[in-house]
Amino acid sequence: MPGEQRNAPRTRREVLAAAARALSEQGPNISLDAVAKEAGVSKGGLLHHFRTKQALIVGLIEEWFDHYDATVESLLEPEDTPGRWTRAHIRATFVPDDLWSHPSVVTALLGVPELQQRLDVAATRWRQQTDSDGLHPQRADLISRALDGVTLADLLWRGQESDEERDRTRDLLLKLTEQAGPLV
Amino acid sequence: MPGEQRNAPRTRREVLAAAARALSEQGPNISLDAVAKEAGVSKGGLLHHFRTKQALIVGLIEEWFDHYDATVESLLEPEDTPGRWTRAHIRATFVPDDLWSHPSVVTALLGVPELQQRLDVAATRWRQQTDSDGLHPQRADLISRALDGVTLADLLWRGQESDEERDRTRDLLLKLTEQAGPLV
Repeated sequence: MPGEQRNAPRTRREVLAAAARALSEQGPNISLDAVAKEAGVSKGGLLHHFRTKQALIVGLIEEWFDHYDATVESLLEPEDTPGRWTRAHIRATFVPDDLWSHPSVVTALLGVPELQQRLDVAATRWRQQTDSDGLHPQRADLISRALDGVTLADLLWRGQESDEERDRTRDLLLKLTEQAGPLV
Repeated sequence: MPGEQRNAPRTRREVLAAAARALSEQGPNISLDAVAKEAGVSKGGLLHHFRTKQALIVGLIEEWFDHYDATVESLLEPEDTPGRWTRAHIRATFVPDDLWSHPSVVTALLGVPELQQRLDVAATRWRQQTDSDGLHPQRADLISRALDGVTLADLLWRGQESDEERDRTRDLLLKLTEQAGPLV
């Protein structure tokens, strides 16, 4: 099917978005049939991209990391000043991401070995970016931990915090990158 | 069964510990039969405490919060100085908790409505404790976020960090409580 092949990347993205929607609406135990229906593609069209539910879950994981890394790159300041990578990570973490951080999506992804592998690779790279960013290790560590904390809040008590609270934390973290010395 | 009733709290704790072990070893889809076997109690003995798997999961959630709060209380310094509650939370967060933070346990608990309810209540209380602790709101917020980040690391990339890294973060957070003013 040449037509299908030409639109393969788009179909792949649509299937993944449909999978995330299905997970957030129907819970972690989605079927490939339900995802194909949600995406508006045939079961065969879905199987062309993802042969199993496991492959679909791994696809979601890869998409999440690719999306986050692209967001960080897009938010990098042009000038290479101290804290540049750290500020891009701060801004990327606070970009709203309603679809991917739904509890059912997280539940479906958690415990998948590929998630652990991708996390290990990504966490190492992110750490290298913020560790060689010209900030004192105390600052780099504290900001990284706080960003992980914001992620946990997104996963577990999303909606419990006001936009003002989130903005205040983001602004505080950005301010902490404006000086480079030790914190205490 | 008077004997069983006399030991009810202990049996309850043993069943919950067995459930957590079963979840971490067998994944999120445990059966009540498997838990009874793991706990060394009869199915009837288990059902006396938890009538459904759902009730068992809720029991695990309650046990986790009770355990964390008891740990915080036990780590409170006797003297009422600024940062006292915050330091107890920092120390409690870094107490190793191998059983409860296994991915399968988290997967089983996540998405359960009772978890959200308990989290909301607990997060409000924890925030009151650290907000009225004599530290500048910036410090209180940053430390709370960083502690959430340590929790996320426990859940997602447990074992990827060395004890030295964790100790460094804990010591930095404790040091941040020794001054009370704004950070930036």
